[in-house]
Amino acid sequence: MSASSRILNLAVIPGDGIGQEVVAQGLKVLSAVLPQDVKLETEDYDFGAKRYHATGETLTDADLDSLKKHDAILLGAIGDPSVPSGVLERGFLLKLRFAFDHHVNLRPSKLLPGVSTPLAGQPEIDFVVVREGTEGPYTGNGGTIRKGTPHEVATEVSVNTAFGVERVVRDAFARAQARPRKKLTLVHKNNVLTFAGHLWTNIFHQVAAEFPEVTTDYIHVDAATIYLVTDPARFDVIVTDNLFGDIITDLAAAVSGGIGVAASGNINPSREFPSMFEPVHGSAPDIAGQGKADPTATVLSVALLLRHLGYESEAARIETAVSADLGERGDSVRSTDEIGDALVARVVAG
Amino acid sequence: MSASSRILNLAVIPGDGIGQEVVAQGLKVLSAVLPQDVKLETEDYDFGAKRYHATGETLTDADLDSLKKHDAILLGAIGDPSVPSGVLERGFLLKLRFAFDHHVNLRPSKLLPGVSTPLAGQPEIDFVVVREGTEGPYTGNGGTIRKGTPHEVATEVSVNTAFGVERVVRDAFARAQARPRKKLTLVHKNNVLTFAGHLWTNIFHQVAAEFPEVTTDYIHVDAATIYLVTDPARFDVIVTDNLFGDIITDLAAAVSGGIGVAASGNINPSREFPSMFEPVHGSAPDIAGQGKADPTATVLSVALLLRHLGYESEAARIETAVSADLGERGDSVRSTDEIGDALVARVVAG
Ligand SMILES: CC(C)[C@H](C(=O)O)[C@@H](O)C(=O)O
Ligand SMILES: CC(C)[C@H](C(=O)O)[C@@H](O)C(=O)O
Repeated sequence: MSASSRILNLAVIPGDGIGQEVVAQGLKVLSAVLPQDVKLETEDYDFGAKRYHATGETLTDADLDSLKKHDAILLGAIGDPSVPSGVLERGFLLKLRFAFDHHVNLRPSKLLPGVSTPLAGQPEIDFVVVREGTEGPYTGNGGTIRKGTPHEVATEVSVNTAFGVERVVRDAFARAQARPRKKLTLVHKNNVLTFAGHLWTNIFHQVAAEFPEVTTDYIHVDAATIYLVTDPARFDVIVTDNLFGDIITDLAAAVSGGIGVAASGNINPSREFPSMFEPVHGSAPDIAGQGKADPTATVLSVALLLRHLGYESEAARIETAVSADLGERGDSVRSTDEIGDALVARVVAG
Repeated sequence: MSASSRILNLAVIPGDGIGQEVVAQGLKVLSAVLPQDVKLETEDYDFGAKRYHATGETLTDADLDSLKKHDAILLGAIGDPSVPSGVLERGFLLKLRFAFDHHVNLRPSKLLPGVSTPLAGQPEIDFVVVREGTEGPYTGNGGTIRKGTPHEVATEVSVNTAFGVERVVRDAFARAQARPRKKLTLVHKNNVLTFAGHLWTNIFHQVAAEFPEVTTDYIHVDAATIYLVTDPARFDVIVTDNLFGDIITDLAAAVSGGIGVAASGNINPSREFPSMFEPVHGSAPDIAGQGKADPTATVLSVALLLRHLGYESEAARIETAVSADLGERGDSVRSTDEIGDALVARVVAG
């Protein structure tokens, strides 16, 4: 493939609720920012509630084979109240993370100028959470006995391996090393979850020895939630387990502008399988189809996607455009489409 | 025992760091508020880091036998950096909760007038978290194989029983029923932790049928952290699992005045064993012995203790005193002792 005919081949999963609308804007901005010599090819996939109701399928082996062929995956949102809780989460979202070994779940939090936060005094917020994506309490290990009786026992097993912890901790150290402050915080609950806690803590210290420039510290997950609202500026890069990461990144999104602007990447750093990029928000069925959804989080997820594939300057252009747009947004109420258009105009001009 | 010679027999565990200082104020206020005909008897216990270093003991069977004889336990704080993480947590704090079956971990959050919060706009906050205290990921189930090798696997098992979930859910419904808003929110992660999630959700619905006046809803733990900073007024009573409760109550404390004022009770509602009351904050070794610690959380824990033992009007008098004190506190810097004295003066006058 010559430099004059590069191809960017994306799997696009609009999904449920507002997914369709926000993904359309993400793709619009992506097309506008890509260099002229890069050809964007996309294939749409119909995963989500509709397909589940029609066929009972969430994500088949054939689907996975087909998804594998793409450079990356862009997802809008999956989930609908008509589907029992857990079915699409376990059957699609988590299945995809596990199948494609998305062990680095990357969630940046940056409070941009002009963006409102529930915190008083507009604190400085600029950190990244590296959440482990394939282990911990998310493995689906566990079970139920005597279901529905007064003697029911249900267990959930958090599984943590040296292999799984080490690779994500190493990834987080590398990210910390590349940032100006070079600081990495381990968040866990090692005083109570002592088996997993010791594993995480020991590996964290081992890998730290390889990154002497990175300052490290440790905080219990409960205390981390306190700092996220009283002193978020103390964080630069955080590395944490799957469940703790789930919890603190929602809080992080809330304090740094809301889930309307929170982007995420489900990354396989080895690129053995395509990585998946998605807004942190859900399908928001209550506002679906009304052109009210904010596509910013999806557009920022496109930036993460581009950076992952090596399009650093294009990613930065999107982020600059979003920053400028949010800074000048004020109280104006704009439609999904209008926000997308404004961002397209900025990346084209930028 | 005649009404003219009632006895209140407390086990007092000052513990580590600031524990001694704050407990002294708690007892001062307790003595001041108790009716004249109630005789306060206290016995001090030396649990904590010092005893651990001297004897290697954290909490023996003989200790438990001795503690059992009291009406309730007041604790300052346990924990010191000189003790390896987990030793006092598992060996004392959690051992006591399990031994005395403290399954209702009660943590009220109320933003009192004049108290500052990291949230903008001084929102209304007045809710109670009922955290399960004897199950979930806190049971210590799990283990490690191939420790210290690249093939280490560490597991943590969350154990949830119908018996354990039902009793705490029922307790939470009763508390919700007794409050003006009569609203109960279940916080879990039932879309991912489906085994435990189904158990909690089913029992929640079953018990709800017995409390038709109580409005119910369900929120995932990650989303709950968002609401705690964007719309804390939506919560009245929350019931949740041990680990989720640990995490969200620290956040709840942070948004509603800080851990300096957060009280908690580790309650055995059947009174088969004495319940234990303690501030949510830790031992804060950095400020220990300097008379800087805020005893308010301990004093509020004394109020919870009194209410648990049936001294409702005395509990209310303490809460009123604390409210008034915080409201008029302004920016004044007062010592631990001065705050205690101010509260004593108010309960005596009140
Ligand atoms: C929908 C759910 C499976 C998912 C998770 O818990 O990981 C979501 O909350 C997220 O954070 O991406
Ligand atoms: C110290 C620790 C064992 C404890 C817990 O996790 O329960 C503390 O964080 C708390 O919330 O009381």
